[in-house]
This record gives sequence, C-alpha cells and structure tokens, in this order.
Amino acid sequence: MADTGLVLGVDIGGTNTDLGLVDREGRCLAQGSLPTRAQEPARAFFPRLARAARGLLDGREPCAIGVGAPNGNALRCSIEDPPNLAWGRIDLGAALAPWFSAPVAADNDANAAALGELRFGAARGMSDVIVITLGTGLGSGLIVDGRLLRGSTGFAGEIGHVTVDPAGRLCGCGRRGCLETYASATGLVTTLRDGLATREAPSALRDLGSTALTAEAIHRAALAGDALALEAFAFTGDLLGRALADSVAHTSPEAIFLLGGLARAGDLLFEPVRRSLEAHLFAPFRGTAAVLASGIAGNAAVLGAAALGWDLLDTSR
Amino acid sequence: MADTGLVLGVDIGGTNTDLGLVDREGRCLAQGSLPTRAQEPARAFFPRLARAARGLLDGREPCAIGVGAPNGNALRCSIEDPPNLAWGRIDLGAALAPWFSAPVAADNDANAAALGELRFGAARGMSDVIVITLGTGLGSGLIVDGRLLRGSTGFAGEIGHVTVDPAGRLCGCGRRGCLETYASATGLVTTLRDGLATREAPSALRDLGSTALTAEAIHRAALAGDALALEAFAFTGDLLGRALADSVAHTSPEAIFLLGGLARAGDLLFEPVRRSLEAHLFAPFRGTAAVLASGIAGNAAVLGAAALGWDLLDTSR
Repeated sequence: MADTGLVLGVDIGGTNTDLGLVDREGRCLAQGSLPTRAQEPARAFFPRLARAARGLLDGREPCAIGVGAPNGNALRCSIEDPPNLAWGRIDLGAALAPWFSAPVAADNDANAAALGELRFGAARGMSDVIVITLGTGLGSGLIVDGRLLRGSTGFAGEIGHVTVDPAGRLCGCGRRGCLETYASATGLVTTLRDGLATREAPSALRDLGSTALTAEAIHRAALAGDALALEAFAFTGDLLGRALADSVAHTSPEAIFLLGGLARAGDLLFEPVRRSLEAHLFAPFRGTAAVLASGIAGNAAVLGAAALGWDLLDTSR
Repeated sequence: MADTGLVLGVDIGGTNTDLGLVDREGRCLAQGSLPTRAQEPARAFFPRLARAARGLLDGREPCAIGVGAPNGNALRCSIEDPPNLAWGRIDLGAALAPWFSAPVAADNDANAAALGELRFGAARGMSDVIVITLGTGLGSGLIVDGRLLRGSTGFAGEIGHVTVDPAGRLCGCGRRGCLETYASATGLVTTLRDGLATREAPSALRDLGSTALTAEAIHRAALAGDALALEAFAFTGDLLGRALADSVAHTSPEAIFLLGGLARAGDLLFEPVRRSLEAHLFAPFRGTAAVLASGIAGNAAVLGAAALGWDLLDTSR
C-alpha cells in the first residue's frame, strides 16, 4: 500500500470523539468530530467512526491508526470497560479491521497526551519526562529513556492514584486520599467547598449554586482576587508539588508538564506547584525538574492519539 | 586484547571493599577483599585495589570493570562525595586507567544490586522490577523494560526518600518522614525504641544497652515471640507496603525484591509488606506485583558490580 504519510488519530471521549489526519511533523491536515453516544453499543459506534474517517481521508489510506481512550490498553490494543461507556472490552484491531488495513495502536488518553507532547510539543528531544493531565481526574504518562513507560500490566503511570493522605478524601477508585481527589478540577471544587464551609471570609462563590461552582468559576474568582479561590489554588498546587517530588524520586525527569483544563489557570497553579516541588525534593533532584506548560497548538488529544500511531510505525520498523 | 570472558566486579563499602572475577553466567571464579580505610585519600586506595585485583587476575585481563559504591553515578562513571569516605569526587575511568585498559562502569550500590538480581538472580527474564535494599538506609533500583532506570540525573530510583509522613521522623537528608527513616535497620530500631518508651508490655529488649539494640537483636526477639519486636516488624512492613503501592502506580513491576540485612527476617517482614501492598494497591495493579526474596547465592554486591560491567559490554556492542 502507498505510504500516504498520514496517521489517523482518534480521541474517544465520553461525549465526543475527535479525529484527525496527522503527518510526521504533527501537522493536522484534516479533522472532524462525531458524538460518541455513550448509551449505544460499540458495534454502532465503529461504523460511524469509519464513515467520518473515510470522509477526511477522501480516498487515501492511513499508514497507521492511533486511538486514545479512557482505559485504553497498549499491550492488548484494547479499550477495557471504559468509564461512562457501555462498551465492555473492545479489541480495537478487530473493531477497525472491516474498515481499515492499517496497523492500530491504542493507549489511555493520558499516555497519548504524553507521547504527543514528546513527539510534537515542548518535550521534543527530551528523554525523561512526566506528563500530568488535570481534568475531571488526574491522568499521567511517564516518558523514560525517550519511551512511554507501560510496565508489566500496561497500566504504569497512574500518579492520580498515589496516596497523599491515608485518612483523606474518598476516591472513585474506592480508596482514600488519592492525589486526584485533590489535584483535579473536581478536587479544586471540593477544596473550595471545604473553604466555604469552614471559613468566614467573604467570597463571590458563596452565591453560586452547586452546578455553577466549577473549576472555571473558581479560576475567574481567583483572577478577581477572591481570597478563598486563591487559597484553593495554593492548596491544590502545594499538594501536587509534594506528590510530584515523590514521582521525581522515582524517574528523575528533566521536565514535568501540566496539561488539561485546570492547567489553563497558569501561574495560579504553576507557581505553588513549582514552589512546593522544590521545597519537597530530595537534594540531588533540586533544580533538575522544570514544571512546564504544553507546547502543543491545536487539538492535543488528537495529536496524542496520532503520536501513538507514529510510534507504532517507528518502533516496528 | 583477548576476551577472557571475565568482568572484575568491585563493591566499595565504607569499611571493606570486596572484589571478584565474574563470568557471563554470574559464576564468581575468584574473590578477595581489602580494607577501604575511609580516612585515607582515594589516591592511596586505588593502588591497593589494583594490587588486589592483579592477584585475582593472575596475568589475565578483565574485559570490563564494574564498580558499585555509595553515590556512584552511572552517567558520569564517578563516585561523588561518598558518605563516610573522605574522597570528594572520583572519576573512576581516570582513577583506574594507570592499572587497567578495560572499560569501566559505575553506579550506586542499590542499582548494582538491582542489575545483579536481573542478570544473575531471581529477576532473570523479567522486564519490570523494583529492587529494594534494606540496610542502614533504604536503597532502590528500578528496572524498566529490562533496563535500569537512571533518569535525567542518573539518580532515579530513590524510593528511600519518598515522603510517607510530612510531619514524621527527621531524615539524614534534612527532610521529614522519608521512607528510609522507617523501613531500614535504623528505622526498625527507632520504631522499637518508640514502643519501649510508650508501651508497658514486657520485652527482653528493655534490658539491652543502646549499642546492643540492633535490628538483629529485634529479629531474634521477634522469633522468640517478643510482642514489641513483632509489632515493630508489623509496623515497618505495613509502612513499606503502603509506600510500595505508590511505586507500583509509577512503574507497574511484575515483582518487587527485598534484599539486604533486614530482608533476612523473612516472613516477619515479607508477610506484612505483602498484606499492606495488596491492601493499598489501585485496583488494576492488585495481584500483579509479587514480593520476592533475592535469588543470588554468594556475594550479591560483587555480582551486582560485575553485572554493571557486563551490561556495559552488552549495550555498547
């Protein structure tokens, strides 16, 4: 088959699925989107995905397909009981075989984002990197020696579920005190609620109903100088920095990237993370791990998914 | 130069230096020892080391030299301000060049032990492994994808300095609550002392002077059924298991090896570690990481040092 030099990147989310054709330099030459329709079975989704992809491809064949999805597993090229989707376990090779002959790579969305940052973003040329995605939860991908660390199970790099307080907040995973119950959009909202309940300080956020009290609302309030909002960011950054000091003691990265919705808060989050990280680092690591923002322009999730495909091509050659 | 098929492994300790000639299968064909003499400068040590090595070699040339030492740095092939030795920074290539033409590899003693276990011990054939050495402190080596994880600084894998309690015991590194202040021979003694001070339970250990109250003495007392000694092991194992659950969330190993003096306590330590590890693991990792004892017979430190040399030969080919 002719090498078109294009990888199809697919980011499957609980609500929407984004896709794009991405060349070796990370240029997205065409992109599209379809509703995932979480309540429908997977067998209804893949024909719709194939149609959307064929529309973008316009007669060309992709040289590989990369899929990022919650609970994507690289070792088995599968999606396994994705939260919010009634799919069960999906073998992606089999699911896409009726429509495409290109090889397929899969991974969870955080690992895809990490590989995207390495191949197309600000981590280009780096060997050892930690990528943290701060959304509803906390995802992470560890790059070691220029490659994604997957471990014996394919699930390596789950920093969201290290324990920062054994007696702390109950996590969706059933345990207590996981980092993601603090360092995530959800965690920030919980921290702010705790502040509203236990502190007397005036705050515009007191007037918001529970659905309006989002991480974005807290971000806006912090920019306007709201004391409780500023404290919630400082607390979140402090805890994340402390946890990352332990991660640095494991893999000693040259940089830690903070991506995702919560990272848009910029210095409100980055400054306390940097301060806390340095304060908690074991001496040999001080000053060695920069905390940086993403260097990806455009749809990071689609580029990350495409990076999985390019990685598959480069490592199987 | 003729390939003799022998690597010279050198384990430099604060008191003694052990060395041996080790073939590719991990057989130690000759071994020796010399006092390190911590108070003497390095320039007095290396001629003595060379003489001892020449005696073992008996006219043969080693195909590589591997050196394990506290604060050994693989990236720079150096020993950097080793604790208890008045050496400053030693470039090992330069220090050994007057005596040997073979290539030299260095690393810290825990990384050497990890590579020894991988090459010659019970981790043979495994890809992802965590090796913990429990001595005066806690050292660790992380094997990822069949290779030692060194990170951007060469210091990756310092699990002894993750924080298990931000308000906890003061560590020699200047911070509080590092894992090695609990999970080490020193930590076990501190835990036992805390028990003696705060509990009324009778214990044969109450009669020991402070120099006699060692990890070995606590081990013997635990075997004899001493309640405080048993509790100290249970507490140590519980904390180590909890910290290792976070390490598994990083690298997802198929096995965790516990080596070193404290590991000789066997099930007194291994059972609480296993129980606590499983109880604290994030669900996808449960049942995936075995806690195992070393499979190395003989001098593990010399075999580990030799493994550094063999690794250098195999990766530079």
